[in-house]
Amino acid sequence: MDISIIVIGDELLIGQVTDTNSGWIARHINPIGWNVKSIKVIGDNETEILKAIEECFAQTDLVLTTGGLGPTKDDITKEAMRKYFGGKMIFDAEVEKNVLEVVNKRHLKINDLTAAQAYVPSSCRVIQNLVGTAPIMWFEHNAKVLVAMPGVPFETEQMMEKEVLPQLIKHFCSNEYIEHRTFIVVDYSESALAIKLEKFENDIPEYIHLAYLPRPGIIRLRLTGRSTDKAKLKADMDYLSHQLHDILNNCIISYEDKPVSAILGDLLRAKQLTVSTAESCTGGNIAHEITEIAGSSDYFMGSVVSYSNNVKQSVLGVSSEALENEGAVSRTVVEQMCNGAAKLMGTQCCISTSGIAGPGGGSAEKPVGTVWICAKCGDKTVSERYHFPGTRDRVIDRASMTGLLMLIKLLRDQ
Amino acid sequence: MDISIIVIGDELLIGQVTDTNSGWIARHINPIGWNVKSIKVIGDNETEILKAIEECFAQTDLVLTTGGLGPTKDDITKEAMRKYFGGKMIFDAEVEKNVLEVVNKRHLKINDLTAAQAYVPSSCRVIQNLVGTAPIMWFEHNAKVLVAMPGVPFETEQMMEKEVLPQLIKHFCSNEYIEHRTFIVVDYSESALAIKLEKFENDIPEYIHLAYLPRPGIIRLRLTGRSTDKAKLKADMDYLSHQLHDILNNCIISYEDKPVSAILGDLLRAKQLTVSTAESCTGGNIAHEITEIAGSSDYFMGSVVSYSNNVKQSVLGVSSEALENEGAVSRTVVEQMCNGAAKLMGTQCCISTSGIAGPGGGSAEKPVGTVWICAKCGDKTVSERYHFPGTRDRVIDRASMTGLLMLIKLLRDQ
Repeated sequence: MDISIIVIGDELLIGQVTDTNSGWIARHINPIGWNVKSIKVIGDNETEILKAIEECFAQTDLVLTTGGLGPTKDDITKEAMRKYFGGKMIFDAEVEKNVLEVVNKRHLKINDLTAAQAYVPSSCRVIQNLVGTAPIMWFEHNAKVLVAMPGVPFETEQMMEKEVLPQLIKHFCSNEYIEHRTFIVVDYSESALAIKLEKFENDIPEYIHLAYLPRPGIIRLRLTGRSTDKAKLKADMDYLSHQLHDILNNCIISYEDKPVSAILGDLLRAKQLTVSTAESCTGGNIAHEITEIAGSSDYFMGSVVSYSNNVKQSVLGVSSEALENEGAVSRTVVEQMCNGAAKLMGTQCCISTSGIAGPGGGSAEKPVGTVWICAKCGDKTVSERYHFPGTRDRVIDRASMTGLLMLIKLLRDQ
Repeated sequence: MDISIIVIGDELLIGQVTDTNSGWIARHINPIGWNVKSIKVIGDNETEILKAIEECFAQTDLVLTTGGLGPTKDDITKEAMRKYFGGKMIFDAEVEKNVLEVVNKRHLKINDLTAAQAYVPSSCRVIQNLVGTAPIMWFEHNAKVLVAMPGVPFETEQMMEKEVLPQLIKHFCSNEYIEHRTFIVVDYSESALAIKLEKFENDIPEYIHLAYLPRPGIIRLRLTGRSTDKAKLKADMDYLSHQLHDILNNCIISYEDKPVSAILGDLLRAKQLTVSTAESCTGGNIAHEITEIAGSSDYFMGSVVSYSNNVKQSVLGVSSEALENEGAVSRTVVEQMCNGAAKLMGTQCCISTSGIAGPGGGSAEKPVGTVWICAKCGDKTVSERYHFPGTRDRVIDRASMTGLLMLIKLLRDQ
């Protein structure tokens, strides 16, 4: 079954807020075997809302909306829904009771605006919002369904999971199954990978689809299959996964979709190793990426960001000879940084970087984007000179990703 | 003028990737005085692409698309555009030359798929993509314009800024002048600020608009004026800016829209001071934010990310008594971290953090989201306990922003 999503809010059209609701809904609708056919982002504008509902019902039987249910003047979704589905605004004592409970839990007082949340169109069935004051509204119209949910991601996520999704499944009970498999691939450009997989791709059954999702330094490959025959789907997906494994082998660093820093974390935890970083041009971004993963304190001990040469010498023990003779952006310095941090932090593994992120500071010999990166595990050390194109942000991002991947490779080769 | 955006890619409809292009475009289209009327997110599907173009042209004269221009089989935007605008696929030697340059810069080799990027619909005018291999295509149709751009955010952002936006402005050339003034305000909630500015807002001329753009910890206030009378526009904007300055005074930390870490950098440079950080729960993110600013090596010396208690003791000199008696998340520890890092790095200023980013590790006394933050400048030190709601990412973000703002206030009060 196809569904449509309408995301409502002026703040989205001026780029002030990035919509994450539609992605969340898509990720949770997908495993049921439903497809998001389209997502429309529109402003808090009655004409636009009515037009969007009309267009969505023309192509799908289920429409989910988020946003525009707040208590302030600019939120008009509820009234627009009433216009579309008919009926009048009525006071709902159950909603008022729920709003009072939510407001009390937050130690707030109810005001006129919040109290008005208890008025809902008579044409809807209310699903009580247990984590916010805006009631969720279920409308039916010619065997089609629209569910209007709040714009606050936390509220929509909680209520989708607890109430809306189970009720939708009950209502539409699907007989199709969907399966995804994601593979994170390194050492290939997108086009080189496509050439490598040409024969494999030609042999994929029609009902399974292969997508390439490149990111700097990695490509995520995604197989998606949909079928009413669950057993056949699983068997075919297993077969294709094994084939991919055989063709790409060592270049697949994960059989699950997760951040590269989490893949590194899994390896470190499995091998009971600890890691630190010594960062110059990446300025702490590698440590930041490692610590974005919950539970990283199991294997991450700490980091020294040695931006100045003084700190490289005094804290990490980089030699003044190396700094003078070869410069801060050199193999010797990046290796000394790596060894220094591992010793200081008492870790077996370490990643270090020294480079010129730009826009200033480049020379003919070492242009902006030149970065030396070193990865170390026990007595094994690799270091490499890279040149990353692009802006300062991008050089920092690419160097960070490359450092993480260098250590992953070192750990996998052991 | 109204514009429409079409975002193309299967990965968006299954929620694997979050669209940031439309928000970026909206933020950059807005200052010209153009409005985003709607954003459509659709899959890599020809029928859907053709239908979306039709619908968008029905309501706006300019349509911008992103995505679906990659070299692999799943990307079909180019062929869909050719169907809509007519013509045939032709080889473009200039595009091939550009693709070769881009591929060479990345030290990659060209292959058949990348080479195929040089084929473009004869109905388009190409804008060379200087940072990627997918050519940008400019189509015109009954005085309406569609520009097809890549899905990779970096490529679209770079090329929009350098080429597409200037060419669009030239094409649709307005005779109106637009001026923006942005003020970064601290110490107010959005509603408290709105109450403070009520009289000011009532007196703003009709053709000038005031927007509140809240971010965690700060509110950006933006005045936007549009007029054919350039001199009057400037005079009115100057007058309003002075008024805002008088009303909010010390709570305005910047009269330009820039990252908070850049505002801190300006202050440090002006006062010829240097800074370091000592980070536990923020994991290097404050150092990362400081070093995202070009030229930050003038005032940023380095950082210690002391994730483990061992590193807090051995590198930063935190006392075992404080760790044992008060715990790592305490005023004494965060102050010792701050003093330790400033001494180690030889800086006058320092920011330190110690807290529980979650999801694990919380207790009744110190729940997830509890963070102690300390800022120091010379012999002046402030430290404060905070509780930030939300997920791990959000706690890290809020704690980083709060640390930067604490040091900014300390420097401004001197």
